[in-house]
Amino acid sequence: MEPRNFTLKEITKLVEGELEGDAAVIISGVSGIKEAKEGDLTFLANSKYEFLLDSSKASAVLASKQMRKRVLKPVIRVENPSLAFSKVIAFMFPQEKKFAEGIHPAAVLGKDVKLGKGVCIGPHVVVEDNVEIGDKAVICAGVFIGCGARIGPDTLIYPNVTIREKTVIGGRVIIHSGTVIGSDGFGFEVVNGVHHKIPQVGIVVIEDDVEIGACVTIDRARFGKTVIGCGTKIDNLVQIAHNVVIGENSIIVAQAGISGSSVLGKNVILAGQSGIVGHIELGDNVIVGAQAGVTKSVPKNTFVVGSPAKPHNESKKIFAGWAKLPELLKSVAELREKVEQLTQERVKGGKAKDNKK
Amino acid sequence: MEPRNFTLKEITKLVEGELEGDAAVIISGVSGIKEAKEGDLTFLANSKYEFLLDSSKASAVLASKQMRKRVLKPVIRVENPSLAFSKVIAFMFPQEKKFAEGIHPAAVLGKDVKLGKGVCIGPHVVVEDNVEIGDKAVICAGVFIGCGARIGPDTLIYPNVTIREKTVIGGRVIIHSGTVIGSDGFGFEVVNGVHHKIPQVGIVVIEDDVEIGACVTIDRARFGKTVIGCGTKIDNLVQIAHNVVIGENSIIVAQAGISGSSVLGKNVILAGQSGIVGHIELGDNVIVGAQAGVTKSVPKNTFVVGSPAKPHNESKKIFAGWAKLPELLKSVAELREKVEQLTQERVKGGKAKDNKK
Amino acid sequence: MEPRNFTLKEITKLVEGELEGDAAVIISGVSGIKEAKEGDLTFLANSKYEFLLDSSKASAVLASKQMRKRVLKPVIRVENPSLAFSKVIAFMFPQEKKFAEGIHPAAVLGKDVKLGKGVCIGPHVVVEDNVEIGDKAVICAGVFIGCGARIGPDTLIYPNVTIREKTVIGGRVIIHSGTVIGSDGFGFEVVNGVHHKIPQVGIVVIEDDVEIGACVTIDRARFGKTVIGCGTKIDNLVQIAHNVVIGENSIIVAQAGISGSSVLGKNVILAGQSGIVGHIELGDNVIVGAQAGVTKSVPKNTFVVGSPAKPHNESKKIFAGWAKLPELLKSVAELREKVEQLTQERVKGGKAKDNKK
Repeated sequence: MEPRNFTLKEITKLVEGELEGDAAVIISGVSGIKEAKEGDLTFLANSKYEFLLDSSKASAVLASKQMRKRVLKPVIRVENPSLAFSKVIAFMFPQEKKFAEGIHPAAVLGKDVKLGKGVCIGPHVVVEDNVEIGDKAVICAGVFIGCGARIGPDTLIYPNVTIREKTVIGGRVIIHSGTVIGSDGFGFEVVNGVHHKIPQVGIVVIEDDVEIGACVTIDRARFGKTVIGCGTKIDNLVQIAHNVVIGENSIIVAQAGISGSSVLGKNVILAGQSGIVGHIELGDNVIVGAQAGVTKSVPKNTFVVGSPAKPHNESKKIFAGWAKLPELLKSVAELREKVEQLTQERVKGGKAKDNKK
Repeated sequence: MEPRNFTLKEITKLVEGELEGDAAVIISGVSGIKEAKEGDLTFLANSKYEFLLDSSKASAVLASKQMRKRVLKPVIRVENPSLAFSKVIAFMFPQEKKFAEGIHPAAVLGKDVKLGKGVCIGPHVVVEDNVEIGDKAVICAGVFIGCGARIGPDTLIYPNVTIREKTVIGGRVIIHSGTVIGSDGFGFEVVNGVHHKIPQVGIVVIEDDVEIGACVTIDRARFGKTVIGCGTKIDNLVQIAHNVVIGENSIIVAQAGISGSSVLGKNVILAGQSGIVGHIELGDNVIVGAQAGVTKSVPKNTFVVGSPAKPHNESKKIFAGWAKLPELLKSVAELREKVEQLTQERVKGGKAKDNKK
Repeated sequence: MEPRNFTLKEITKLVEGELEGDAAVIISGVSGIKEAKEGDLTFLANSKYEFLLDSSKASAVLASKQMRKRVLKPVIRVENPSLAFSKVIAFMFPQEKKFAEGIHPAAVLGKDVKLGKGVCIGPHVVVEDNVEIGDKAVICAGVFIGCGARIGPDTLIYPNVTIREKTVIGGRVIIHSGTVIGSDGFGFEVVNGVHHKIPQVGIVVIEDDVEIGACVTIDRARFGKTVIGCGTKIDNLVQIAHNVVIGENSIIVAQAGISGSSVLGKNVILAGQSGIVGHIELGDNVIVGAQAGVTKSVPKNTFVVGSPAKPHNESKKIFAGWAKLPELLKSVAELREKVEQLTQERVKGGKAKDNKK
């Protein structure tokens, strides 16, 4: 937590930015605009927080080349301030956590386990028979890896993860604690009111560069495979059912759930607590809003919201309509009365005319 | 994953079906209709997928006796194709996973533990004092079983499950990884704004033939017991609060939550992400739709949907109404204008009459 | 589970109540009103259950000083019957679970670990380098505590919990099984469609007297800290994202989720399955209803409901409006017809007049 100090000159060079201000200023930490104290570098990614810069105690700020606001403190201008900030963090806080190479004596390994170079296996890990683990993979304490599973190189599995038999995990994957990969799919046949288990003999395939949060559950396929595509990132407490296929570079936010056999395209975003029914398809670049409930397939490039989910512009009108409902009910009651009056007067008018005759 | 080959004759006999086609055809695998390749057996459970049969590369198909479609490939006709398919899978992929009988030397057992015959206890398991484990039960790596808990015969507990003290688990139960049974119920008394813990001294009882998914939480009762009835199946990431009672053969789909002291009947189905408030009753055969929020008791044989949940036919009309809301708002605005005009003309008409007098 | 017997006199003294009835009556257990059997003490916290008292088999009841109902069995009157009942439970079922002081030989401890007096560390625990554990803290089987973490005195961590590096946990904290504290926040920068991980170098701080349920996930801050305030209680399967700050004595019910950087005040209540978007503030004493979706900041002392969430009285009217929507659609269709008729008659009337001229 205690980074060494850097000058603004050094930091400007690191992020390939343009400095406005004193290159000799010393930066000793990083922080958000509000929380920053003297010596901290902060960043501005969203212009709505510009007004906070004046009162911020930060000693310098990373900002967009487009920012127009005049700032009294030194500014390093870059294309993408948030990305540049991450670079600074990675630089100032080099991976302190060292995973000791080798197999901890309190780990238990089965037969015919193939370990790459520089693998780290922590205490109380269980690696069953015929498992393959790639170079420089890190398997932390208490992880279970079942028979015949394969773990790619540079993959990092945090403590207390469970990887069931035959699961295939790519390279540079990160899996957070408490997560379970390859549990049985939820499938039963009802015969006379009793649920009979359907064997789940498929596997789970996690492709390269995937990150999976804590306490996520990804079920193995009934047969064939459940697939998480290359570069996809999954947040905490997400449920992914058997035979689901997720394309590349998708984002699945916390507590979302995807039911069996649904297929998601590339660059799909599921916001938090959203749910997808089984056996449907979401095209590339689909965005599903928070708490949305998707009940049928969604064509590519569509943003759906609400439960049941509809295209964003439709749901927006519906939500606006809800707010007007109480007033609408009153309006209609009034209208009914007026129309009733008009109708009665017409009848009376008619009768009056009749009387005149 | 590599099953040996079988003839259609052998498979037809296994599923007690009727074969239309060449009994000598060799089946080397199983697969879904779309994914099937030559040598695979597939199945058709839902007539909406019939059209896929023509292009499927499967070498044979399991289909219903009622299917009318003419198929060029061999067909095995059975009452329930999905169930028959499961039989074939179980036959072609016999339980490969062998759990080695005996107690792994890296397990830790307390005092007065009673183990049945043929029990398997994996590495890094902890079994505390006075625990009883039935014949042929399998306790996988890293499982914790607290003092005085009882596990029935033929029960299978996957790695990294936590079973707290005094929990009672029946026979032939399956519990998936990461699940926690018997954690304290969530109960506090507020005194002067501070939450005081209410002791949770009850237990959890899991009856025979229950299956519980991964990362499920089932809390122990405040006093008395939380009960999961015989044959009930629970999916991943489900929350079951203290003192809940679930009847036999119910289905609780992923990410559903049941609040404290609610009682569910037999054959109840809770779809994914649904929620049940505390202290209510759901009768036998109740079905709760996905993401529904049930706020009061539901009589038996009722299908409820929506949040707050209502009977399915009511909610269906409400959902249809939402879609018409934007249009409805316009209609009412137009009507107001027209009625206003009619009213004014009537007034003018009246005045005109008055003028005529 | 087998408490010794007590007289009503002893129990009355314990709860500082007023006894109406025979002080010599023997109490051998505790139970809910419905489930009670002879010899049990029960309690009445909610007057809606008063009618159950007559048929209850309990031998005595704890009731409010305000209860007017005449009860035939002995009654102990107190200010808060539920709290008094908890006292009785704690008295009749003294913490039976004894955690053996000392370090289990199957635990693995790193370098420079500082242990307080009377600490209990269970089997298969991993405590990494530079961890500090306070007096009388209990670390159960299979728990992982990462480098530099600090655990306060009298804190109880149940089996199979994961505490990542540098996490700071206060005194008298309880953490249930399967929970993960300090996993990386979910943060990525998109560059040319690829998600680059943003380093998450902050920590999690859990203050004194917090209780955290099973399978909860609390992410470490991007930088700075994620904070759970003193006395806050968190139920099972809750998601708390990076940089969230929760004030004192708040209640977060099962399966709720709080997105990144949101700030909750004191005494906030989030009901089950509710969701809070990122970067907003909820003031002190805010209550969020079950399944609500909060999309913007909420001022203090406000009760919000629905998704998107609105103040309770507004949402209540909206929910009532939904139920009337199908009828409303019919009403408006009828009105349109009537107004159309009136309009046409007016036109005809006008023409008739014209004809008369």
